[in-house]
Amino acid sequence: MRKTFLFVTMMASGAASAFEALPMVPPIPADNPMSAAKIELGKQLYFDPRLSIDGTVSCNSCHNVMATGTDSRPTSVGIDGQRGGRNAPTVWNSAFLSAQFWDGRAATLEDQAKGPPLNPIEMGMPSEKAVVDRLTAIPGYKDQFNNIFGEVSYDAMAKAIAAYERTLITPNSTFDLYIKGNKAAMNDNAVAGMKLFEEIGCSGCHSGVNFSGPELPIGQGFYQMFPSNESKYTAKYDLKADKGRYEATKDESDMHMWRVPTLRNVALTAPYFHNGSVNTLPEAVRVMGKTQLDRTLNDKQVEKIVAFLESLTGEFPVQTMPRLPDTSTTSLVGAVK
Amino acid sequence: MRKTFLFVTMMASGAASAFEALPMVPPIPADNPMSAAKIELGKQLYFDPRLSIDGTVSCNSCHNVMATGTDSRPTSVGIDGQRGGRNAPTVWNSAFLSAQFWDGRAATLEDQAKGPPLNPIEMGMPSEKAVVDRLTAIPGYKDQFNNIFGEVSYDAMAKAIAAYERTLITPNSTFDLYIKGNKAAMNDNAVAGMKLFEEIGCSGCHSGVNFSGPELPIGQGFYQMFPSNESKYTAKYDLKADKGRYEATKDESDMHMWRVPTLRNVALTAPYFHNGSVNTLPEAVRVMGKTQLDRTLNDKQVEKIVAFLESLTGEFPVQTMPRLPDTSTTSLVGAVK
Repeated sequence: MRKTFLFVTMMASGAASAFEALPMVPPIPADNPMSAAKIELGKQLYFDPRLSIDGTVSCNSCHNVMATGTDSRPTSVGIDGQRGGRNAPTVWNSAFLSAQFWDGRAATLEDQAKGPPLNPIEMGMPSEKAVVDRLTAIPGYKDQFNNIFGEVSYDAMAKAIAAYERTLITPNSTFDLYIKGNKAAMNDNAVAGMKLFEEIGCSGCHSGVNFSGPELPIGQGFYQMFPSNESKYTAKYDLKADKGRYEATKDESDMHMWRVPTLRNVALTAPYFHNGSVNTLPEAVRVMGKTQLDRTLNDKQVEKIVAFLESLTGEFPVQTMPRLPDTSTTSLVGAVK
Repeated sequence: MRKTFLFVTMMASGAASAFEALPMVPPIPADNPMSAAKIELGKQLYFDPRLSIDGTVSCNSCHNVMATGTDSRPTSVGIDGQRGGRNAPTVWNSAFLSAQFWDGRAATLEDQAKGPPLNPIEMGMPSEKAVVDRLTAIPGYKDQFNNIFGEVSYDAMAKAIAAYERTLITPNSTFDLYIKGNKAAMNDNAVAGMKLFEEIGCSGCHSGVNFSGPELPIGQGFYQMFPSNESKYTAKYDLKADKGRYEATKDESDMHMWRVPTLRNVALTAPYFHNGSVNTLPEAVRVMGKTQLDRTLNDKQVEKIVAFLESLTGEFPVQTMPRLPDTSTTSLVGAVK
């Protein structure tokens, strides 16, 4: 009796609070309004490997919008074959996150976009000025920047990229259709998984339109400790080698704290966790059950939750390829060895 | 008098022989007819970094169709930051070449496409079987291959990629418009450059629809020795370290022989030559004048020829981005370190 009562109560409140369909428009900062020209420029920059010192790495190299918005790798590869330390989060629906990077160290998509070009193991540009000089040397960029922003600047570059990223939204998952009233959209296993997801407490953190926590002001991240409970998985997947948000803040209270990641399209973004150490979604669900909720999920439970998570795969909008503006008669990366 | 006479004669014959507009349809092999489904599959494969062992390198990494069809680098970068030995030729209009690679070692685009996935410094897959196994593990690929080819195979992969590449054609350069009768399309400098290009003998090799030599049966390459004449440039740009076609055939008569490259869009494909050693088009023209024609071109001549070469930049067709088929709940490159 008690179990049934609790179940009904949670589902009733859950439908109203924890579960929401994905909006088509994300938060837009007042100082970076959207425009077609800005989005188009941002798309070109996003796909342009000339943002890296040797012309080999673009934003899209690690956050592949033709695929899952990630690179499907444990951790990414930057210039000169260098490996990064953390798994590339998906760019899809990142506009709905209130803080960026695994440790939330960037408040906005604009701030995030300024990181990789100057990161020596990612794109390796020596300075903001070097990036601006290169963009200015490409007539097609110079003209677009001048028309849209009145100048070529590192800030403007980040604004254009962020504007493009705010268009990367995947609506109409079977979950979204279900939530909007089409109860036939999700199969029985997925519906059972959704109920279980709420019942055992996954939705305590993975709530909101992006399943990444409650709606918070941009810049205010929603963090949780991972792993919360000790288990065999800590050693097996080396979950504590990286100190998480502590690395950014050096505040002891941030030790092993991580921004709660989105679960939208999570079935497509393997491998999982900040270090990409878990290669399959069923295992990731098992690990989360144990480390966060101290539950040992059985195979049937895992199967249901995975079916629910698969229902969060949305529709990826058709896009045209950008054309990257050229530098006639010379190469900007041709002299880079 | 003699000079004028010769000039007129050459221009008259040149208009009929050396210079031709780019057709919209390239040669299509009988055993690989085009279809919309095959082209779409080929586009997905072309952009898919999972054709490389660690998921970091796609065909597009070095032959960027959003840009010039090259990577704008002296030589390309493959997996683990490894550098190749030769400059990446543009994929645009490669369907009009009668042999592929700088040394012509592949007869067709199909043969060419089979090279990079297995090259240990490019995409690094251990075997054809490993590629086929990976493609078969991606349901969206398996279904498309079965529908189009009746099987997943390495040959079928190459056919699909080649079919896509045969759509990568850039018509309507100002040169093409001029040749088709719009005499205002090219500016005076470009027209003067075109005349000079023929007068001094550049068009002796750079003829035909693709400026890569006479029309030959597919598989029969058109080769020239480079450098033909000794000059200061041999050492300055290290032009003889690579033995060219000899490396492929071990035939002494192929020593320093190279397939004559296309000049279409050449203004966009810096840096130049098989080793990418020359970063600007004016310098490349100077080098060619000396090494191939034993002429020291003056600045005015170089300027005119460059203006002509700029008139060979065509229109790049708008394309939709492919969507790469996914592997739900797991990553095929997630376990690759």
